[in-house]
Amino acid sequence: MLPILYEALVDAALREDLGRGGDLTSEGTIPPGTRARGEIVARKGGVVAGLDVALHALSRLDPVLRVRRFHADGGRVQDGAVLAGLEGDARALLAAERTALNLLGHLSGIATATREVVTLLEGTRARVVCTRKTTPGLRSLEKYAVRMGGGANHRTGLDDGILIKDNHRRVAGGVRPAVEGARGRAGHMVRIELEVDTIGELEEGLALGVDAFLLDNMTLEELREAVRVTDGRAVLEASGGITPGRARAVAETGVDLLSLGWLTHSAPSLDVALDLTPLDGPPRTSSPDAAAPSSGGP
Amino acid sequence: MLPILYEALVDAALREDLGRGGDLTSEGTIPPGTRARGEIVARKGGVVAGLDVALHALSRLDPVLRVRRFHADGGRVQDGAVLAGLEGDARALLAAERTALNLLGHLSGIATATREVVTLLEGTRARVVCTRKTTPGLRSLEKYAVRMGGGANHRTGLDDGILIKDNHRRVAGGVRPAVEGARGRAGHMVRIELEVDTIGELEEGLALGVDAFLLDNMTLEELREAVRVTDGRAVLEASGGITPGRARAVAETGVDLLSLGWLTHSAPSLDVALDLTPLDGPPRTSSPDAAAPSSGGP
Amino acid sequence: MLPILYEALVDAALREDLGRGGDLTSEGTIPPGTRARGEIVARKGGVVAGLDVALHALSRLDPVLRVRRFHADGGRVQDGAVLAGLEGDARALLAAERTALNLLGHLSGIATATREVVTLLEGTRARVVCTRKTTPGLRSLEKYAVRMGGGANHRTGLDDGILIKDNHRRVAGGVRPAVEGARGRAGHMVRIELEVDTIGELEEGLALGVDAFLLDNMTLEELREAVRVTDGRAVLEASGGITPGRARAVAETGVDLLSLGWLTHSAPSLDVALDLTPLDGPPRTSSPDAAAPSSGGP
Amino acid sequence: MLPILYEALVDAALREDLGRGGDLTSEGTIPPGTRARGEIVARKGGVVAGLDVALHALSRLDPVLRVRRFHADGGRVQDGAVLAGLEGDARALLAAERTALNLLGHLSGIATATREVVTLLEGTRARVVCTRKTTPGLRSLEKYAVRMGGGANHRTGLDDGILIKDNHRRVAGGVRPAVEGARGRAGHMVRIELEVDTIGELEEGLALGVDAFLLDNMTLEELREAVRVTDGRAVLEASGGITPGRARAVAETGVDLLSLGWLTHSAPSLDVALDLTPLDGPPRTSSPDAAAPSSGGP
Amino acid sequence: MLPILYEALVDAALREDLGRGGDLTSEGTIPPGTRARGEIVARKGGVVAGLDVALHALSRLDPVLRVRRFHADGGRVQDGAVLAGLEGDARALLAAERTALNLLGHLSGIATATREVVTLLEGTRARVVCTRKTTPGLRSLEKYAVRMGGGANHRTGLDDGILIKDNHRRVAGGVRPAVEGARGRAGHMVRIELEVDTIGELEEGLALGVDAFLLDNMTLEELREAVRVTDGRAVLEASGGITPGRARAVAETGVDLLSLGWLTHSAPSLDVALDLTPLDGPPRTSSPDAAAPSSGGP
Amino acid sequence: MLPILYEALVDAALREDLGRGGDLTSEGTIPPGTRARGEIVARKGGVVAGLDVALHALSRLDPVLRVRRFHADGGRVQDGAVLAGLEGDARALLAAERTALNLLGHLSGIATATREVVTLLEGTRARVVCTRKTTPGLRSLEKYAVRMGGGANHRTGLDDGILIKDNHRRVAGGVRPAVEGARGRAGHMVRIELEVDTIGELEEGLALGVDAFLLDNMTLEELREAVRVTDGRAVLEASGGITPGRARAVAETGVDLLSLGWLTHSAPSLDVALDLTPLDGPPRTSSPDAAAPSSGGP
Repeated sequence: MLPILYEALVDAALREDLGRGGDLTSEGTIPPGTRARGEIVARKGGVVAGLDVALHALSRLDPVLRVRRFHADGGRVQDGAVLAGLEGDARALLAAERTALNLLGHLSGIATATREVVTLLEGTRARVVCTRKTTPGLRSLEKYAVRMGGGANHRTGLDDGILIKDNHRRVAGGVRPAVEGARGRAGHMVRIELEVDTIGELEEGLALGVDAFLLDNMTLEELREAVRVTDGRAVLEASGGITPGRARAVAETGVDLLSLGWLTHSAPSLDVALDLTPLDGPPRTSSPDAAAPSSGGP
Repeated sequence: MLPILYEALVDAALREDLGRGGDLTSEGTIPPGTRARGEIVARKGGVVAGLDVALHALSRLDPVLRVRRFHADGGRVQDGAVLAGLEGDARALLAAERTALNLLGHLSGIATATREVVTLLEGTRARVVCTRKTTPGLRSLEKYAVRMGGGANHRTGLDDGILIKDNHRRVAGGVRPAVEGARGRAGHMVRIELEVDTIGELEEGLALGVDAFLLDNMTLEELREAVRVTDGRAVLEASGGITPGRARAVAETGVDLLSLGWLTHSAPSLDVALDLTPLDGPPRTSSPDAAAPSSGGP
Repeated sequence: MLPILYEALVDAALREDLGRGGDLTSEGTIPPGTRARGEIVARKGGVVAGLDVALHALSRLDPVLRVRRFHADGGRVQDGAVLAGLEGDARALLAAERTALNLLGHLSGIATATREVVTLLEGTRARVVCTRKTTPGLRSLEKYAVRMGGGANHRTGLDDGILIKDNHRRVAGGVRPAVEGARGRAGHMVRIELEVDTIGELEEGLALGVDAFLLDNMTLEELREAVRVTDGRAVLEASGGITPGRARAVAETGVDLLSLGWLTHSAPSLDVALDLTPLDGPPRTSSPDAAAPSSGGP
Repeated sequence: MLPILYEALVDAALREDLGRGGDLTSEGTIPPGTRARGEIVARKGGVVAGLDVALHALSRLDPVLRVRRFHADGGRVQDGAVLAGLEGDARALLAAERTALNLLGHLSGIATATREVVTLLEGTRARVVCTRKTTPGLRSLEKYAVRMGGGANHRTGLDDGILIKDNHRRVAGGVRPAVEGARGRAGHMVRIELEVDTIGELEEGLALGVDAFLLDNMTLEELREAVRVTDGRAVLEASGGITPGRARAVAETGVDLLSLGWLTHSAPSLDVALDLTPLDGPPRTSSPDAAAPSSGGP
Repeated sequence: MLPILYEALVDAALREDLGRGGDLTSEGTIPPGTRARGEIVARKGGVVAGLDVALHALSRLDPVLRVRRFHADGGRVQDGAVLAGLEGDARALLAAERTALNLLGHLSGIATATREVVTLLEGTRARVVCTRKTTPGLRSLEKYAVRMGGGANHRTGLDDGILIKDNHRRVAGGVRPAVEGARGRAGHMVRIELEVDTIGELEEGLALGVDAFLLDNMTLEELREAVRVTDGRAVLEASGGITPGRARAVAETGVDLLSLGWLTHSAPSLDVALDLTPLDGPPRTSSPDAAAPSSGGP
Repeated sequence: MLPILYEALVDAALREDLGRGGDLTSEGTIPPGTRARGEIVARKGGVVAGLDVALHALSRLDPVLRVRRFHADGGRVQDGAVLAGLEGDARALLAAERTALNLLGHLSGIATATREVVTLLEGTRARVVCTRKTTPGLRSLEKYAVRMGGGANHRTGLDDGILIKDNHRRVAGGVRPAVEGARGRAGHMVRIELEVDTIGELEEGLALGVDAFLLDNMTLEELREAVRVTDGRAVLEASGGITPGRARAVAETGVDLLSLGWLTHSAPSLDVALDLTPLDGPPRTSSPDAAAPSSGGP
């Protein structure tokens, strides 16, 4: 992902944490110019996403930070894995630590949750897609994290696809006026998708030549029927209440896509940490059990 | 919360969703000037937070939006509760819908999770506090959501409190130099807290007159001993791995604070929705079962 | 178009003109509180676009400006037409005048040029589309102006459609790897278009199931052959050197789209002006010849 | 021109094109790390302006881009001239290509149009000046392009000069109150110019000691009379409807300046392109005919 | 002064004070919805500047604030004067208080210092001008404050006037190349001023037709000689070490301008305060001695 | 201080000075590519603060500027001291000169004033603290300058400490409700301070367990009594009208802190300058008397 797409967010996040006064603790406890060695550690295993972003945050405060990467975004790691080794200015590393970890943990949490569902669907034709239920300001990164987890992206916003939902249909006065109006607004690069609740609505949309359908909260039975009726004429996306426990069954109905809002709005953060030692201290081991301290606290 | 503290975030979030092209679907399906009636509904019960923020997002696109509030931030609601009734421009409501709901669901999710733990601690002296493990760009709002849930805030950033953690101590070369250095940098309004892993470190900190201690990953036994040793001379904060299942027991050790990073980085979003009908359509009922559709999809 | 999509641009443009010192001339020549009546006039006929944006600029400096609109975006007007009547603070109107007119003239120029080509194509199936050759910072507004002129929009940016151009193909090592790679990156809402220079490349792309083709700099003969070969299996876009003089002939080959970069990068501005009189002066007539003065000068 | 004056614009333009999702096409078609060689080519001859800006845009996405410049801003080039040679990351070059070319083409178009008029005036005393009829957000760069074409700049905004136009005069109630008021507001570094429509107004202004006059829409006869009457006591600027065809005649009346709004609001873009080849491909020739493809399309 | 020129600064200042957490004290001590009556008081007499800006800051947090103005910018007031009466939301007034007062006190301090010197010069032809030695971010407002004090503005920045100083002259290699080069870059609206240290340099500049001279650190004798030599052919500005005690004597040499950097970089703030009472409390008197409390503290 | 905390301010300040047109004088007088040697000189002695910030401003326009530092922030220097030697692009140095000096002079002025008072208090227990009476936009830097002068910081804003002032107390209805309310809002890291005017109020606050007291405008007698009554149970801050002449006596009453608003709102700027010579000119000496010219002018 091009840094220009996240630089401003990282700067805002660093400033949000530094406030007006800067890092009182590091300035108070550590002499200027002190150098330290550090390791970014995944306390829990999962799929990495956001390592470049996190390293960018650290480098923003120490422009000559030295970094060795041991893993890359999209890679699966075990509990205690050392993702990167660092050497740089101790104050800068401590000041940027939380910002870097907040981003890395959040994005890796999304990638890990995505991968879990992707793995469940192996052997089916269904792909996992995310939604616009993202955290304000983080959409680009969260959609990137979904891709790192093996999922695909739906629309990135209101302007790069047309999804006619129940609210639109109700206010527009029906499926036909909604679809025909949408077609007039869409350019030739934009696909049109229609949310349907029943097979009847699906058939109405198919007759209108709609490209894709969001099958909202349908039973497995209904989904199978939708696949049968559609017969490859449109993309079918199952949506609504798809938990890991139910995902495989949904996929086996033959739909093309499973969309999961919770990947971006509710996936728990992955537990990541930064462990520092003075540069002239004993070399840090990278074993998981050495990585226990400093996990908690605000 | 003063709107000046969230206006820029809301604008950025709306622009993030509208992109360069605006809301293709609403522009395509709904004639300009169409008016609609809407309800913001909590599909699942919980504690509300961010309703003002969500309404601000909607009003940003329809400056003459009419709003009736049925609940307020900090209130607990049941499944299907109607939080607010709206009447305004249909295109504007649809264009702002997802941004408003993303904020409301995220913040209400944090408030709901906080309240759950606060309720568990009733009758003990312990308070719930959040950490700096927040989503980049959302710290002010997330800390507000914790307060709405009944929790208290720890530092809001690196510049309004001193928390000497293991990394600082290690790089500083011990507890004493770290504490003494920090005291020189702190103004008279800033308290100093020290992360400790053992009772010995706690005693060392008490001897140095430290104001508060973060007791990291201690057993219940150790926490009780810490309370006994401290004897009211400092604030004690238990931290690390405090799940709802373990919170009550931790609180009963007599510590003052339980800090929980997951409140802000991993609490699942509350399921909220906006249901619209054309203004001249039949009046919407507010019963939960009427609020079923349109939950899914990107 | 939602004001949130152009407010920041208008503010930046006003500040760019006001500089640090504000409008020296108006402050020097006109007492504070002086009110004036004004008319926005199209010196030359054309298609209006950006009137709301221009009025927003004027209202930004006089929040209680009174406005009567006589025309709307998308309307065609004659030489000397009065687009809107104004009454407000004289200093504010003068300070915002140039910013408002620069926007209105630029966007109306694009709409006018687009309409000219759209009119030429009447009776054919071809639509006019614009490109990404837009003025930095103005893409949303310029694409809106194209729509007001009767044209359609292609991609609004690099992220809402895939267009494999010669450069991609060359660096990717051929059509097949480029198309297959693109398909993996595209979500299900994103269409894929391929630039081709020959009928052979078109056939290669059709075999790969590409959704649309940009036929670059083809002769009328080649375009006809492309239409025949494609036979409705994909969208065909003619591009390169399409002047008004040649547009009709290109459209009659049967292609779906004519893309014209010059609509947004080279269309001349429409000549618009603001004529002011003191509020207690004689009522302004709206006849074209009354609208002669003040056209020139920096 | 100092980069600090255009960096923010370039960043905004790149982000406008990349959107939230980045360059789908390049990410899909070209493996990360692929390197390419490129040439920035002027398909049509003209005067170069904005090459540094364009290269800044490319370098913004590839910070280690290698560049060789073959021409500089202000230079005149022939059809097919290679302006610069590049070697860098293929994805970055493709992602920044359109932004770089949009800027270069727009500014070179202005410089080229300016040079055309400047050349027509050779041997007269008259200089070409631009106006405040610029594209919102681009004033600094457009005025720079005029200078590169050999023209001079008028005011850069409302705060660095006083130009009393018809609207001011009408609302102020005459020439005398307007000029005297303006003098009170102007500092000693600011000159005062007055727009006049008749020789009588010119004489009134001269009697008031005005520094310069904008002679609006005067005939050649009137312009000559104005020069005679003024007799070197003030700067005379001819304005209004000055086409290339009429410019020489206007200049020969003896006025000091010809101001042309269309240089900045209506000059057509110069046709420039970026041609890429894989780094390990055959070396690109720089001959014009080799530079034919990829001109079109959005 | 148009609010668009200071709105962003005021917002930034409010956010700088509110931080991430908002006004803890007001939120803690005062119930939401509490209303209060307030008075903005000048503890010490002086010249008012920035009252609109200060009221804008207060209204930004309470959009329906009710205000009565008793004085206006540029007015001279006595110790204890009530500048404005307020009625609004107590929390909002307290949260915006310091930002509003910091601006009002700073700008009124500059206006007061300017007026003091202007008064000293009454009866001479000399005007007081400020310099570019302003506080970063506040130039527009500080130059406005100088005008409110009765002074005039020099350049507002590097781009609206040419002032050739010793550094330029030394690097350019002499007066002549510097002046001739500058003339080529200046447009016809821009005046050229030259810093000179000796009468010889002044004569050299006069021979080159320079518009104005900055006479740097000259003795009264030298200044008189400069006036005699120049004989009205250029504007003369005395600069360097002009204290109130020496200003009258400098003015009486016959120079046109006295420039004083310290007006904007070192004028002490005027002591202003906001006194609040609960809305239902006894009416506040406006006598100075009633206005004693709350002057100090951070 | 981390550059991320002042970079945006420096950029804004440079852009404020450069305007839209850039540095006309340097562009006019000095050929591109000219190199110069320079010295930053303190014309008057004092305490340096902001040297890094000033050098950042210069380096922002010449990224390869070569710098030698002869002094550091916090150091005391004599009249004429050379703070740093520079070698770089002449135009860039001249364009950034005023911005750099405005920052350096302003911050050094604050540090110098602070050090003067700190020196007066030597041997007492009292520390000097600043207030929130800072220049809008400069709070972080001004508080840093106070620290460089040897002072300490009070709150940096409304969210990192609680200071109950007279206005709060009056609107809240007394000391007790104000203090108790504040305690509920404060987290465990935030101290509570109360402004008191009388010994009675102090005793009331002590009984409520308040952490610190702002003793507003008390006589020396009252201050001594406050110290006696408090007996070490709280921090005591004297505030209001503390001039250098009175500071020692106030400190000798035994209070902990003296707060001085004028350090940040009224300290005069330190006189600093940049002296340039062409790179191939004679080497500059660093003696004070060589540093005389170019002090004045806008």
